[in-house]
Amino acid sequence: MRTTLAWHADGPATPLRRAPIQRRDLRSDDVAVRVDFCGVCHSDLHAIHAHGGAGQPPLVPGHEFTGTVTEVGPTVTAYAVGDPVAVGNIVDSCGICAMCLAGQENFCHDFPTLTYDGTDRHGGSRTLGGYAREYVLRDRFVHALPQGLDPAAAAPLLCAGITVWEPLRALGVGPSTRVAVAGLGGLGHLAVKLAVALGADTTVISRTPDKAAGAEKLGAHRLLVSTDEEAMAAARDSFDVVLDTISAPHDLAPYLRTVAMDGTLCQLGHLGTVDVAMTDLLIGRKRLTSAGSGGLPATAELLAFAAKHGIVAEVEVLPSSRVDEALERLGRGDVSYRFVLDLSDLDD
Amino acid sequence: MRTTLAWHADGPATPLRRAPIQRRDLRSDDVAVRVDFCGVCHSDLHAIHAHGGAGQPPLVPGHEFTGTVTEVGPTVTAYAVGDPVAVGNIVDSCGICAMCLAGQENFCHDFPTLTYDGTDRHGGSRTLGGYAREYVLRDRFVHALPQGLDPAAAAPLLCAGITVWEPLRALGVGPSTRVAVAGLGGLGHLAVKLAVALGADTTVISRTPDKAAGAEKLGAHRLLVSTDEEAMAAARDSFDVVLDTISAPHDLAPYLRTVAMDGTLCQLGHLGTVDVAMTDLLIGRKRLTSAGSGGLPATAELLAFAAKHGIVAEVEVLPSSRVDEALERLGRGDVSYRFVLDLSDLDD
Repeated sequence: MRTTLAWHADGPATPLRRAPIQRRDLRSDDVAVRVDFCGVCHSDLHAIHAHGGAGQPPLVPGHEFTGTVTEVGPTVTAYAVGDPVAVGNIVDSCGICAMCLAGQENFCHDFPTLTYDGTDRHGGSRTLGGYAREYVLRDRFVHALPQGLDPAAAAPLLCAGITVWEPLRALGVGPSTRVAVAGLGGLGHLAVKLAVALGADTTVISRTPDKAAGAEKLGAHRLLVSTDEEAMAAARDSFDVVLDTISAPHDLAPYLRTVAMDGTLCQLGHLGTVDVAMTDLLIGRKRLTSAGSGGLPATAELLAFAAKHGIVAEVEVLPSSRVDEALERLGRGDVSYRFVLDLSDLDD
Repeated sequence: MRTTLAWHADGPATPLRRAPIQRRDLRSDDVAVRVDFCGVCHSDLHAIHAHGGAGQPPLVPGHEFTGTVTEVGPTVTAYAVGDPVAVGNIVDSCGICAMCLAGQENFCHDFPTLTYDGTDRHGGSRTLGGYAREYVLRDRFVHALPQGLDPAAAAPLLCAGITVWEPLRALGVGPSTRVAVAGLGGLGHLAVKLAVALGADTTVISRTPDKAAGAEKLGAHRLLVSTDEEAMAAARDSFDVVLDTISAPHDLAPYLRTVAMDGTLCQLGHLGTVDVAMTDLLIGRKRLTSAGSGGLPATAELLAFAAKHGIVAEVEVLPSSRVDEALERLGRGDVSYRFVLDLSDLDD
């Protein structure tokens, strides 16, 4: 086994704790990655809040990171020591089900192995995430980080980015598409950048007008204020695609009203059970869908697209020792638009 | 005013009552139709059950009928006395909103005028439906009944038929599409016939295997029994489109599991509020939608398609004096597949 340092979450009321963890010795197809930068995702907050504290299995969050290859197993040919790489929220899958064969490992019928809080499908050990200085995973689930992408700002592409990229692509967003992005956090701001780069007419929907400057800076064509009833009424039936990235529970009806006939509302931010009045879908034959994470081909496609268009996340980079501050500020929405931890201080 | 005979509903526990109603004198663009055959729709049952009885506005159900033109207003050019025609559940709309201009009068922003239980948008009177010997309506909302379609069996095309036709078309159903139809009543059996004629690989999903012979007779390629867990597991992710025509409240999850990646479940039968676990949509990026009724162009298209392919409903025709029997049997599911009332007995 290999030892590295990591930030352990012991429950919602406890600061994260710096302590060693063990990584497995490299299997033949494994890659060891020195984690350089890891994004702080809303899922991390949820996982920490759900953690029962002492007596529970250890939790090390973090599932969107970039780093540098430090060692490879004997059958690994795609990567070599020193390569810049990126890892998302899936580190393995069954590989033989219809979804895996279709390159949608995120929907693996046997459930994908999550980067943290998952179970390694060979050894049975619990996976520990990227708030750590090293990660070991199968080569298939490592992505080459394209040249020209800042490794800190690129890290959120691997979870927030791919989560919005897959539905943008699946819903055929392109030059003739009218896209609205509701919520302008980690997911939303990347959705805006990607939709704009795809050529879509892109609107940000926000509760307050104070997001106007930020939306414009991201390339959005306009801001629609959801509390402005007149503006919302004027926007009725006007968007082919609404990407709803709002993380708090909320009524879908006002957003569904802005979806054009045969258009789609894709909910990405809040994934509980929602009440849907079928008449809100019936009138205009509107579609409700969701998406999450992505398959390997779509992730590679996203990274290539991001490199071509110079798209990375807007990030605030903090040394990993300030992880509690990042989580606390994320919890109250004080973030533009993504925190990224610099793990190099774990060497100190 | 003109007087005709009709079947009045006075509440859920009371037999329908034969009594005269008044129709308006023809406006310049009106057509008077002798109602020959009127389908008995599930909506009729709902309306009757919701009726408060004595003291409430009169209720005459019926919104899918065929008949014969008996008189036309002076500006009507498309129809002449003696023409066979068909009328659905909408008899007027604003005509100027985006939905009307798109030929989707069923989604009129100013709400379409329903064939019964609606309000005439000019005179303000309450509309009374097709369980009557005569109906008067705007020419725009009259459809020519194509030659070769049996007028009794064609009547259900105007509500049940168009309700399944619009989503089949909007979802692009054709030769390469895998379609499943859940529920085999008035809507479902027409969905099967139309999907088969569109060239789709068509499966019927039913709770019991006793629908197999009926499904085969309708042209379906197979029956999937929803209570057979093994068969349902094997059908996972296998249908591009599931048309859910089940009229009772039910859990969508088992049906969503059979939808293929990026496929759609269209709920048509039960239109209340449903609980949707977003993860059931997330895994496979599945889409939930609905539809209801149809616009004028789609209705004309359906009638032409039905005539070309010889598609009508499977009906049991009863003299209108037996309307209570039809409603009672429909209420307990004793119908294959649609009751149609023959209104000619109102002349006796």
